[in-house]
Amino acid sequence: MADTTEGTEAADRLESALTSRIDPGTLDEIAGLARQVPRAEIARLVHTSTPLQSAMLFRVLTKEEALDVFEDLPPAYQAELIGNLREPEVADIVEGLDPDDRAELFGELPASVASRLMKGLTPDERSMTSAVLGYPKSAIGRYMSPEVLGIHEDWTAAQAMEVVRARIDGPETVYLLPVVGPGRVLRGVVSLRNLLAADEDTVIEDMVRDSLSTHALTDREEASREFLSHRLIAMPVTDQEERLVGILTMDDVLDIVDEEDAEDLARGSGTEPLDRSYLWSTIIHLVKSRIVWLLVLAVSAILTVQVLEVYEDRLDQVVILALFIPLLTGTGGNTGNQAATTVTRALAVGEVRVRDLGRVIWRELRVGAVLGSVLGALGFVIAGLVYGWAIGLVIGLTLLSVCIMAATVGGLMPIIAKKVGADPAVFSNPFISTFCDATGLIIYFTIATTVLGLS
Amino acid sequence: MADTTEGTEAADRLESALTSRIDPGTLDEIAGLARQVPRAEIARLVHTSTPLQSAMLFRVLTKEEALDVFEDLPPAYQAELIGNLREPEVADIVEGLDPDDRAELFGELPASVASRLMKGLTPDERSMTSAVLGYPKSAIGRYMSPEVLGIHEDWTAAQAMEVVRARIDGPETVYLLPVVGPGRVLRGVVSLRNLLAADEDTVIEDMVRDSLSTHALTDREEASREFLSHRLIAMPVTDQEERLVGILTMDDVLDIVDEEDAEDLARGSGTEPLDRSYLWSTIIHLVKSRIVWLLVLAVSAILTVQVLEVYEDRLDQVVILALFIPLLTGTGGNTGNQAATTVTRALAVGEVRVRDLGRVIWRELRVGAVLGSVLGALGFVIAGLVYGWAIGLVIGLTLLSVCIMAATVGGLMPIIAKKVGADPAVFSNPFISTFCDATGLIIYFTIATTVLGLS
Repeated sequence: MADTTEGTEAADRLESALTSRIDPGTLDEIAGLARQVPRAEIARLVHTSTPLQSAMLFRVLTKEEALDVFEDLPPAYQAELIGNLREPEVADIVEGLDPDDRAELFGELPASVASRLMKGLTPDERSMTSAVLGYPKSAIGRYMSPEVLGIHEDWTAAQAMEVVRARIDGPETVYLLPVVGPGRVLRGVVSLRNLLAADEDTVIEDMVRDSLSTHALTDREEASREFLSHRLIAMPVTDQEERLVGILTMDDVLDIVDEEDAEDLARGSGTEPLDRSYLWSTIIHLVKSRIVWLLVLAVSAILTVQVLEVYEDRLDQVVILALFIPLLTGTGGNTGNQAATTVTRALAVGEVRVRDLGRVIWRELRVGAVLGSVLGALGFVIAGLVYGWAIGLVIGLTLLSVCIMAATVGGLMPIIAKKVGADPAVFSNPFISTFCDATGLIIYFTIATTVLGLS
Repeated sequence: MADTTEGTEAADRLESALTSRIDPGTLDEIAGLARQVPRAEIARLVHTSTPLQSAMLFRVLTKEEALDVFEDLPPAYQAELIGNLREPEVADIVEGLDPDDRAELFGELPASVASRLMKGLTPDERSMTSAVLGYPKSAIGRYMSPEVLGIHEDWTAAQAMEVVRARIDGPETVYLLPVVGPGRVLRGVVSLRNLLAADEDTVIEDMVRDSLSTHALTDREEASREFLSHRLIAMPVTDQEERLVGILTMDDVLDIVDEEDAEDLARGSGTEPLDRSYLWSTIIHLVKSRIVWLLVLAVSAILTVQVLEVYEDRLDQVVILALFIPLLTGTGGNTGNQAATTVTRALAVGEVRVRDLGRVIWRELRVGAVLGSVLGALGFVIAGLVYGWAIGLVIGLTLLSVCIMAATVGGLMPIIAKKVGADPAVFSNPFISTFCDATGLIIYFTIATTVLGLS
């Protein structure tokens, strides 16, 4: 803490900064000044400023400072501060920051403040309020139920049952109950079933069992997939200090997963997910969901025109070569998509990790070689019988090479996408097709030039 | 019931049929004879024949007859019969029949027999035993938990709680409790929460609430999707007479949906789902999961070679036309896949039904027209600037037509697949690409022939 004279001076400057219009720029200044001002002074400012000012001032404190200030306030002022934090303007200002800046400027709020802030809100209000808590849209904290019944580890089973009964009509889930120690630190869970089965005098501490939990800032999809893959019925959510701030229930998780699945599926075929049902979407909506990807893909496909232009004179010499272009590019695209879909799924369910890249490439090389040998042999015979053995050889060798190339690229792309932090589904099928088309054509004409002795 | 002399004669023939080797053929005969034999006689045969014989005889009775016979047996014999029905041979014989024949020959078993038959089994035993119950692999009856705690509608809340407490350590779910009336007919559900909140003397009948339930023969995916979309925690399963036979819980549902999703995803890209994890599958396994589809698609793609062969002389005259083949077929495939994916999803979540076919075609026609206009205008300008305005016109018009055709076909295919009872995912993306490739080429060369005045 700074010395008193400096502190008073800073307090004056802080007060004047607060009275100016608050925007992300002044917030930085306020945060800097608040660090130099004694806590008692800040507490005074918090409950004498206008609602918006007091809320923003409180919001720029570090978690520890915020807890101290909050605990120093008389209960009536505490309630008022919670009310101020709920002001829509506070949400707007916090939401208006970049997630990075927000994380840097604002810490999490203390668990006790956070949970009181969220009590008794409608889902809409809650979504607004959780912005104030500093949770970005992708964080599970946005979706948890903050109204969680925390059982204390030193209660008896009978005391716990009494609390459950008293809140049996509330909105909280009661089938899985998080157990907390001093300072709301999560200790584990007890199920209502265990509680009913237990002897009345059993202390909760002796029946608590470990539970998977997640941090409020964890990515919403990651937390949801873990929830589902462990077949949980509820999962406690904590802040960075393992204090209980909420609970995730099955309906929250299913909403998230439905949305993510729809998004992945749409992206995998080059569309943006629709925000309303198909028959309710306007034509313009449907067009918008498709046009961007279609344009990007069509522009990428100009690559294939340019590749073919390079080989235009070979095509002119042996026009028969043109007949096989759709067959060869189609087969390449199919092989690539098969590999990409398999690997994308394996990544999603955790069977393959980014560091397995080498193993995946080696597998897909061999799978592609086997697939290519079968298709190539067939292509050699059929094309050979119809168009002569030289053409047969070109087609056979091209199918072999294209399958190896496409399977490898298809297996590689989703892992690279994941490595650079992109959504594997976006990167995958349509792009792989286009990439394999262009590469396949180069392979085709290189083989044709050599085998047929063109120049 | 037939008269006595005839009955006795039939009983003799029945007894001799039973002693021959039981296979699907003799089962038919046994079923026919059993209908002519008095019930008391059948009861006697059931508990004097060998285990396999008695079980098969019991199994060919109609549900009502089976219930009568079963209730006539002394408890010790009842237990023995249940044991006989669990013989692996019974499962084998029943499983060996076609699902249709099985449904015709064997009714469902009475709910009381079914639930005793399933008690205390491991999941493996249960899957074997549920074959005996007549549930095909795709029916939800195979996956439900038969160990369900049914609460009687005339119990009080206190009595119900006592039963719950007594079975609190059992494997049944206790958070949602099915309520049954006389004859185990399902009346609805009460949640453990409601039970805890209720006054001790409240009669269950007064607190029961309606619940979604499903029949044991319902398709497993359909039942699971309904479970999830209604955010249930458990769903009672009944036989055709609405008698409670089991309960479906979240873990059963998630297993089914995981499997179905993996299958749809794989099929959508032309692979068969893997039965083990990616890195554990052998190369041969991976090849097998892909080769069939790849071959089918490659053989279909021969169509494109044949189409191009028809236009070979036009290609010979204007070799530049060949340069655009991958761009045009690729764009057609992408547009078709976008529409197919959107409509497949809309079908899956119930936003679109088969009878909306006309509306879907009309929407996709217009969406395709808008997408085609944008891409066509762009193609006209770019190709026109580089290769001259005649070529530009051909490319622009082709892009417009291909987009309209592909969007319509893409929207149509999944609905037709569903109509003929095929999996929309199988029918969709790779096939649509191949189909659009061939059709797109015909459109392309028709337009080129006209615009460029070729012959």
